[in-house]
This record gives sequence, structure tokens and C-alpha cells, in this order.
Amino acid sequence: MIIGGGRDDLTSDKLFEFIESVWGLFRSLTGEGVRHTLLKAKEYLPQLELFEVPTGTKCWDWEIPKEWVFRSAQVIRVSDGAVVLDASVNNLHVINYSQPVNLILTLDELQNHLISHPSIPDAIPYRTSYYNTSWGFCISENQRKTLQPGLYSVTIDSEFIDGAMTFGQVYIPGRVTSEILFTTYICHPMMANNELSGPAIALGLAGHLLKSQNYYSYRILFVPETIGSLYFLSKNLQYLKSKLVAGYVLTCLGDDQSWNYMPSRTGITLSDKVAKRTLEELGIEYIENSFSDRGSDERQYCSPNVNLPVCSVMRSKYGSYKEYHTSKDDLTYISREGLHKSLKYFKHLISNFENYKIPIASLFGEPMLSKRNLRNSVGGGDLTVDEKHISDLLAYADGTNDTVELARILNISIEKIESLTNFLLSHNLVRLV
Amino acid sequence: MIIGGGRDDLTSDKLFEFIESVWGLFRSLTGEGVRHTLLKAKEYLPQLELFEVPTGTKCWDWEIPKEWVFRSAQVIRVSDGAVVLDASVNNLHVINYSQPVNLILTLDELQNHLISHPSIPDAIPYRTSYYNTSWGFCISENQRKTLQPGLYSVTIDSEFIDGAMTFGQVYIPGRVTSEILFTTYICHPMMANNELSGPAIALGLAGHLLKSQNYYSYRILFVPETIGSLYFLSKNLQYLKSKLVAGYVLTCLGDDQSWNYMPSRTGITLSDKVAKRTLEELGIEYIENSFSDRGSDERQYCSPNVNLPVCSVMRSKYGSYKEYHTSKDDLTYISREGLHKSLKYFKHLISNFENYKIPIASLFGEPMLSKRNLRNSVGGGDLTVDEKHISDLLAYADGTNDTVELARILNISIEKIESLTNFLLSHNLVRLV
Amino acid sequence: MIIGGGRDDLTSDKLFEFIESVWGLFRSLTGEGVRHTLLKAKEYLPQLELFEVPTGTKCWDWEIPKEWVFRSAQVIRVSDGAVVLDASVNNLHVINYSQPVNLILTLDELQNHLISHPSIPDAIPYRTSYYNTSWGFCISENQRKTLQPGLYSVTIDSEFIDGAMTFGQVYIPGRVTSEILFTTYICHPMMANNELSGPAIALGLAGHLLKSQNYYSYRILFVPETIGSLYFLSKNLQYLKSKLVAGYVLTCLGDDQSWNYMPSRTGITLSDKVAKRTLEELGIEYIENSFSDRGSDERQYCSPNVNLPVCSVMRSKYGSYKEYHTSKDDLTYISREGLHKSLKYFKHLISNFENYKIPIASLFGEPMLSKRNLRNSVGGGDLTVDEKHISDLLAYADGTNDTVELARILNISIEKIESLTNFLLSHNLVRLV
Repeated sequence: MIIGGGRDDLTSDKLFEFIESVWGLFRSLTGEGVRHTLLKAKEYLPQLELFEVPTGTKCWDWEIPKEWVFRSAQVIRVSDGAVVLDASVNNLHVINYSQPVNLILTLDELQNHLISHPSIPDAIPYRTSYYNTSWGFCISENQRKTLQPGLYSVTIDSEFIDGAMTFGQVYIPGRVTSEILFTTYICHPMMANNELSGPAIALGLAGHLLKSQNYYSYRILFVPETIGSLYFLSKNLQYLKSKLVAGYVLTCLGDDQSWNYMPSRTGITLSDKVAKRTLEELGIEYIENSFSDRGSDERQYCSPNVNLPVCSVMRSKYGSYKEYHTSKDDLTYISREGLHKSLKYFKHLISNFENYKIPIASLFGEPMLSKRNLRNSVGGGDLTVDEKHISDLLAYADGTNDTVELARILNISIEKIESLTNFLLSHNLVRLV
Repeated sequence: MIIGGGRDDLTSDKLFEFIESVWGLFRSLTGEGVRHTLLKAKEYLPQLELFEVPTGTKCWDWEIPKEWVFRSAQVIRVSDGAVVLDASVNNLHVINYSQPVNLILTLDELQNHLISHPSIPDAIPYRTSYYNTSWGFCISENQRKTLQPGLYSVTIDSEFIDGAMTFGQVYIPGRVTSEILFTTYICHPMMANNELSGPAIALGLAGHLLKSQNYYSYRILFVPETIGSLYFLSKNLQYLKSKLVAGYVLTCLGDDQSWNYMPSRTGITLSDKVAKRTLEELGIEYIENSFSDRGSDERQYCSPNVNLPVCSVMRSKYGSYKEYHTSKDDLTYISREGLHKSLKYFKHLISNFENYKIPIASLFGEPMLSKRNLRNSVGGGDLTVDEKHISDLLAYADGTNDTVELARILNISIEKIESLTNFLLSHNLVRLV
Repeated sequence: MIIGGGRDDLTSDKLFEFIESVWGLFRSLTGEGVRHTLLKAKEYLPQLELFEVPTGTKCWDWEIPKEWVFRSAQVIRVSDGAVVLDASVNNLHVINYSQPVNLILTLDELQNHLISHPSIPDAIPYRTSYYNTSWGFCISENQRKTLQPGLYSVTIDSEFIDGAMTFGQVYIPGRVTSEILFTTYICHPMMANNELSGPAIALGLAGHLLKSQNYYSYRILFVPETIGSLYFLSKNLQYLKSKLVAGYVLTCLGDDQSWNYMPSRTGITLSDKVAKRTLEELGIEYIENSFSDRGSDERQYCSPNVNLPVCSVMRSKYGSYKEYHTSKDDLTYISREGLHKSLKYFKHLISNFENYKIPIASLFGEPMLSKRNLRNSVGGGDLTVDEKHISDLLAYADGTNDTVELARILNISIEKIESLTNFLLSHNLVRLV
């Protein structure tokens, strides 16, 4: 891939536009909804490559399921032909991966195939049935209460075919093949924070990274959750074990309410360390979750034998806001401001990785700074701020402290530590471990 | 030994009956009191084996002392022949291991051989003189104050012979020879919490363990404190170093007031970890003592070069209740309820050891649970409690977490972790480290 | 060196007398002021050896500068011949290492060469210009305000010659060549706490150490700060790496206000551990500083590649009291009482090193103490305090606990631990690691 053609004009406005443009597509684990979502993304990011993995391909304990072809789904009241539910109005109405049906049912029989959410009565829940042979409809509790006894005609026009699972990737080579991963998912239908915010931020970061030559290589993945990550890991685990410096799941990044950090299983990887330091540098207060409350692809990346350094930083966290996995997680739940701040956070995190170094003092004792014109104060008085920083960096650069640790000790930014390190490198006063 | 014939009818009622039956025996380091106590115990536990170690046998820095033959001890007022003190009334009256004497003394001379306890004026203290050539009487402070000047006839009819130290053992082989030790002492005369509660609980646990085939082997020791443990350790240290998984000193388990945990010297052995987790599982509040306040056979087991994983869990701890080492530590100080709870605690601890495992996930990534009918929830909704437990156990089973740690992380019982582990073993989703 | 001739009569009175005797000497990095200070010190400590290191000698990144010969410095008002500033009145008036000048200047021109301290208007600041070619005068802010426009005659009669840097050392061989270092500096002119208190305490400790045969060897250094330490380290680093047990910078030890501890870079060396335990033993409350606020020769000793175990314990710490580096840090700022307590602290610290041991129990199990007459209590009662200490020391002497740690565990002094250890050594109950 030729570097260049990156876009820092993928601002939050532009990303919100992308979200709106794919809002109505019926995404699922597989199928046309995913393909069209990725093709639309490619309009914003021509470097995005699409891949198709055939049905039946093994991914460790799993295999790629049949592709779900969805055409339409309706519930019609027989008495007067009124359309009670129609997936073309809101694609959450049909349980994802429903079998085809064409039946006349009594209300009692229909109720067994309806799912509603009593505690949020005006929301349509989101449900899936990927690996069970099943069908059903999701309906708001309010509407459900209005259903009258009688007969209902139920039609789901769907098909399961030997097709493929589609995913997208941008790989941006850096000066080294050691890589940093951002992974997001594209398998949920009409939901905003817990779906489209992730791909939007991924687009924004890819555009940003493509602008310039980076030190690390970066990989941005757009996969169906779980099965997509399992496929990717099962094909690349040995490579990732040797190359992956850090990884982040991009999810729930669209609203502007809280910040959440979800650690890796151990909580002590470089991913965790840089994620937390970046939050601190930006003065962001955040909730430190337990890995027990994990819920996205860190489940695969941090699984015992996979054991990669992957964590996540989110805004309102999946499972912890009431609109989650309902029709209320819509375009009004997220905001351009929320996307903007999330993008800013990850750009800063990338900058902190690009600035990552472990300097070690190259001389014995303190260097004589005045002969290099690095110490101009009259002796006996206070050091300038820069003189103090140089002195401290040289004092703590013992090979055990990386830029993240040095930033903590000197209480300045990682960027400042990196620029001081470069300055001292140019004077041969430190070398890199 | 053939397993079977164990008794779970050794309830606290039955154990209290045992305590009453040996209450009046005059136990000491050696001698008939110890033998008859163990023979009585054998009536409750036929599998108990008795051993005799000859006087003079070396035990590292120590040797088995001469056997003390005690017949009677009295102080009689010469003026009227009144019996002032008589060991047959309370065997605490004579200092344990007293030399034989037959003297007429003035009150002043007698006072040099009397010990009382001014701060508990109605209690007879308990004292010993195992390794000093000495004699004396213990008396309540109240009675001491009533002694009038005059002559007193003092007789102790005792003898030191080349005999033996007696101890008892039940060894219950398990499926592995790795073993768990319970050790208690049988060398104190008429005292209840700090003497007979320990052997009673040891009987109860042995009866319980003999009922079934266990995974670990168990050893239950009834020894004179200090010299008995030193003998046992000096003969078996290399074996124990390779086989001992955990050990507990059973002492002070009869009252129902507080709970005390006495750590091993390091406080971080598996004995400590399981003891504390078991207390937590049972919702028991306990006092965490310092090893500086140790006082029983952990002194030998945790000594620097022996260094075995032995700690203890007690009720009112030796040295910390005012009745300790006096005639007030009697049958009214302990209770069936206290014995019952202590027994229950150690049965639970044994169960936690039997359930001890270190599972490690056998697959890469999360397993596909639905194809095994282990995940029935409709996707997108909440997991059931069991589904969440299975998911969490698989996520944390990385080979560094044992059942105790997993129970802490998942905040459920060790027993539940073990049953989940077995369930996952049966599906080949974990294996054991 | 023959041991003996040490002086415990170097009391704080005597040390204060020494300070007064060298108060007016014009010390600098090099030159006659340093030489005469050390020669005066030698009157109190005949064992002090003086060394001269020629100008131009390399010390890693540095080299010994030319020797500064200072004769006089004056500012005279031309209009009436009034002497405005005269270094013979207070040698802080001239910037240390000033170039020779002989000029007539306007007040505006003169101002560029004056340094004052607006926030302490009655104090003359202390400034140096060791490695810049410069000259100037220090003046109180109050006096500066009184200067009238007009011409001023400025004369500094100084010279830079190929001479030497002078330093002093007392090396006191012990029974082992492993050594403990005390280092102080002798390069500041007329200042008391942040200059002469250090050499005074160094004299006191050397006199004390010379009185008797010690276990460790001791080295007491009197060097110009920074360049002196760098010279010493550059010549002896490999030796020190193998021999230095602990080291302390002696500085700011004359006043009696606060106590400050400045850790080594890691804060976990034996120097740190003993320094802190000694403070605790003496019941001293102290400020625990960060290595970020370092300021004396720990900068060299703890630099990354040198990495020696050196820290410091001070009274009012350099940089943290307002009189620091001004003419107000004078003989009234320090006191005999302050010197006395500092001396006492370091004598106690030395004693703690001399008592440093790692005992390990030599037997298996608890030893039988009664046969050695080390356990006289009647059994069953409380142990005496000594019996308890012996028991505890034997219980914790597992080879991982040194005297410092044992003192913390038993909550008694290191001295007491050492005497108990010696006692147990004499009974072959412990040996040393």
C-alpha cells in the first residue's frame, strides 16, 4: 500500500454523514447489509479492502455460518389487513437470522414469537438467533399491549445460502512491522452508539494514519463481532503473537456522556498502560470497569490461549445504558461532539504510541550540560523548567522507564518526553533500549 | 487401611459426650492419662492407631523425656488433718511433671511452691514443669488468702520411669499420596477449649473423612504438643516436604464466641489461602492474628528450616481469653453449638480442598457454546446466571487461577467453581493443569 | 592506617568551633579556600589525607577546571570613592569563578552584572559561574535600591591557572573491605547549613569511627560538589560496585528545625532501608522527599549507569528554606543543638550498620531452650520479655529477614536484635547468612 491519500477531513461531521448514509441498511453477521455498509465506507476510505470468507470455513471451534438472505418480514392482522409490524419500517422488528415462515396464527400463538422490553415500553428490542433455528419479531411493549385477539398472517421472506462472511481491512505499513490494531464490528442493524460509532471512528483513524509515514504498522479491521474476530485470529495468531504491540476494540464511541475503560484480562499490558495514561493526559475522568463486565471482541483477543494485549476505551458502555440494544440507541443518542472527542482521544493515543521509546542515559554520571549550551542558568540559582526536565529525564532514564512511565514521573506529556528524548539523542546523551 | 466405617454420626453431641468421658483423666506429656484418653478416642474411632516412643528417643534438639507416673498429691493442714489441696479433686492442683515429695512445711515454706492467679481469684491456674526438676501446687487466689500460719504436710506420690510417649494417628489414603494434615494435642489435664475441643474435632473430621474415598490422603495426629510434633517432624520431614499440601493445628475449637485465624509464618501458603476463603464463604467474621502471637504446633511446622504450610483457625484463641490455662476453661466454657460450627467449618474446608483444581481453557478463543447446548439465550439479551458463570470461568481459566482464585473473581463458592469445572471438563472445554 | 586516635570529644561544641574557624575562608571549586578549610579540618582530624587533582584531568564527561585564584573584588563609587561592595566583607558578594575585570561603568552597565534576591531583600544571594566565562557581583535587594546613577569602578583581581582540585579523604579499614561511604562537600563560601554543617558532621563521624575497630570499612570524603564526586566515581566505580554497602551525602545538618530524607533513585536500597529505620528508632518525624527534588551528590551516585546505593538524611533541606543559598544561611541559622542531634542520628545509623546481620536458625524445629537455661518460666504461664524475643527471633530467622526487618517485626531496636543474635550465635542456635 502506498502511503498518502489519508484524510484528516474525516471530521465528526463527515463521520456523522457516513453513519446516516448506512443507517437503514440491514446489517447482520453476513449478507448484503454488511457488504453495502463496507462499500459505503470505501467511498470515504478507498484503501479499505473487502474480503469474503466462504460459508463453512473453520475458525477454531466455530465455522462461518450460511449467509442470511433477508427480503421482507411482516405481521398482518387478518381481520382488516392492517400491517402490524414491518421490518422495512424498522429492521429491528425481525429477529436477526430468522427462518422463513408463512403462517396464520392466533394472537396466543404469535405471542410466543414476540419479544418486547417491559422496562423500556416504547423501545423495540434487538435480538438475534444466529446459531439456533428460530424466528420471531421484536416489538415495543406499548404496541404489544394494543394487540387484539384474532388471527395474524406472519411472513418472513428469508433464505440461508452457501455464501460468505464479508469483512474489511486497512493495513497501513509503518517503518517497522510491529503493529497496532484497531478493530470494530459491522454486524448490528439500525443502532448508533453500539454499532455505527465504532466503524465511523475506525474510518476517521484510518484516514488520519494514511496521511503520513508512521513508525508502527497499523491494522484497522471491520468484522462481524465474535465470528469475524475468531476467523481473523485463527488465521493470524502466530503472526499477531510476534507483532502485536497493542490493540483496541472500537465500540460505543458516539455519545458524549461518560468514558469507560475496559481492561485486558490481566489489565497490565502496554495497551492498558497507554490507554490509561492518554485518558489522564487529556484530563478525562473515566470508569474503570472489570474484565468480568467485558462484552465485545476482547472476549476473543484476551481469551486464555490467545492472550493478546487488547483492551477498549468507550463512551457509554454496552450493557450499562438503558437504550443499549434497542431502537432508542438511534441517531439522536449519539452526537457529532461525542464522535469528535472519541476521535481526538484515539488520535492522541496513536501519537503516544508513535512517541513511545525507552531511553537510557549513555554516559556515566550527570553529563556536563554547560559545554553543550544546555545549562545556561547562573550556578546556585533555580533551573529553568526545560533545564529541570532535561535533568530529570537523564536521571530517570535507567532503561526501566519507558516514555509512559517517564511522563508520569516528570508529570508532563508523553509528547514532551519524546521531544526531550529526541533532543538528548541528538546530543548523544541517551540511546534507545 | 480400608476406607469405610467412617461416621458422620460423630455430631457435636457425640463429641461433647467424648469430652465428658475423658474430662477427669490426668493427661500430661506422657503417661496413663494420655493412653486412656486415646483408648477412649479409639472407642469412637476404631481406625485410630496408637504408638509408643521410648524415653530417650532423639527428636532433633530434643529427646523424649522420662514417663511421669502420677498417683496422688495432697496438702494437709497438720493441726487438724484437714485436706487443703487434693489433685484427685482437680488435677490442675499439682504442677504437671512434679517431683515426688513428702515434707512437713511451714506456711512460708509452702508459699514458695504455690502458684495462684491474682487477676482471676477464683481460678486454679495450670502450670507445668516438664523440663525442670521441680514441684508445686496451683491454687486459687481466694483459697490461698485463707491459708493460716502453721505446719502443712505435703505429699506428691509420683515417679519418673523409662517408659514412652504415646501418640495416635489415623492415616486415610486418598487417590493421591499428596496429603492434608490435621494435628491436635492430648497433653493438657482438665481443660476444655484449650485441650479437649481439638481432639474432639479431630475425631469428628476423621469419622467424616473415612466415610468416602477422597482425592487427597489425610493424616490426623493426636500428639503431645511440641515434643510430639517434633518427634513426628524429625521422622518424616523429607516425606512431608514432598507430600504435604496443607496442614492445620486443631486447637481452641469448643466455644462459640469469636473466630481467629493464625497464619503460617509467611501467611501466603495454600493452607492460609484456603482457610481464609473458607471463612469468607461461610460469612464468618474473624480476627486475623499475627504469627508473632503464635502458640501451638505451628511453632514447629513453620520453624525456619521445617517451613511447612501449616496454619490454624480457632474460636477463642489461646492466650486471649481470661479463662485460658485455668480451671475456668471447663465444660461450661465450651458448647455443643461451638463444636458444631467448628466441625462444619473444617468439613467445608475439606470439601474446598477436595474441589481444588487449576483449570485451563483447552481451545483458542471462546468456544461455540450453542452447538453444545450451553448457550440457549436469544442473542442480544442478557445471559442467564449459569451462562455468565461458564463464560467467566472460561475467560479466566488461564492456568494462573486456581479454584480459590476463581471463586474470588466470580464471587461464588469453590464448590460451584468445581462443579462448573467438571461440567466444562466433560465437554472438553477445559483441562487441568 | 592504624586505628585509634579517634575522638569522641568532637562534640557539637567542638564542631561549631571548627565551623567558626573556617567561616571566613573563600571556598570555591578549587583554590586556597578549599585547601585551608581542609588543613584546618586536619587539625581536628590528623588522619585526614589531602589530594590534588591537576587541572585538565578527565572525569568521564567532565574535566577538572582551571584553579581559580581570587585576591579581591570591589565596587567603588567614582564620585566620592565610597566602597559599595567588597568581597573581603562578605565573600558572597563576588560571583564564584568570576573573570578578572578592571572597569569604569555607568550604573546601568553595572546593573547587568548585579544579582539580588527581591523576595529576601536583606540577603546577599550566592551565585557561581564555574563553567561560563563571566563575572558579576551579588548584592542585597535593599542595597541595590540605594545605588545612585553615576560611574562605578569595578575591580576583580582573579586569575585562572593550571593548578588542581583539592579534596580530602579518611579511609578507615574495618574487618571487611565492604565499605560504607559518607561524602560531604567543601566548595561553598560563607554559608553554614548548606555548607559547613556537612564537613563538621563528617569530622565528628570520622573521629568517632577511628576510636575503635569496626566491622565495615568506612570512607569519609570531603570533595567539591559534583566535579569532586565525578572524579572520585570515575576513578573508583568498579571498586565501589563491588564494595559499597551503603552511602550517604552529608549536607544541611546544622539547623534544628525539620528532618528530611532524600531517597536514592530507586528508594529501595539498603541505604534507604537503614536510614528510614534509624529515623523511626529515634522517634524522628521526617519529610519523605521525592528523588525528583534531589540536589546534591546523589545526582552522581544514583545516575543511571553509576547506580550506587546512596541517599541522604538532612535537617532543613537545600532549596526548601528561604535562607538557602544566601547570606542569611549564616552562623545564627545553625545551632550546637542541631549539630548534636545530626551527629547522634548518624552515630546511631553507623551502629545499626555495625549490627547488621542476617541470622538463620541452625536447627530444625524450635530448639530446646530449657536445657540451655534459656527458658526458665514455669510452663503454661507467660514468657518473660526476653524469652519472647528469643522465641520470635528464632521463629523469623529464616534467612530472608535481616536485622532491620527483624527489628521491624519484633518492634525492638536493631541493637537489641544484634545482641539477641550474638547471644543465639554463642549457643549455636543461629548462624549468619
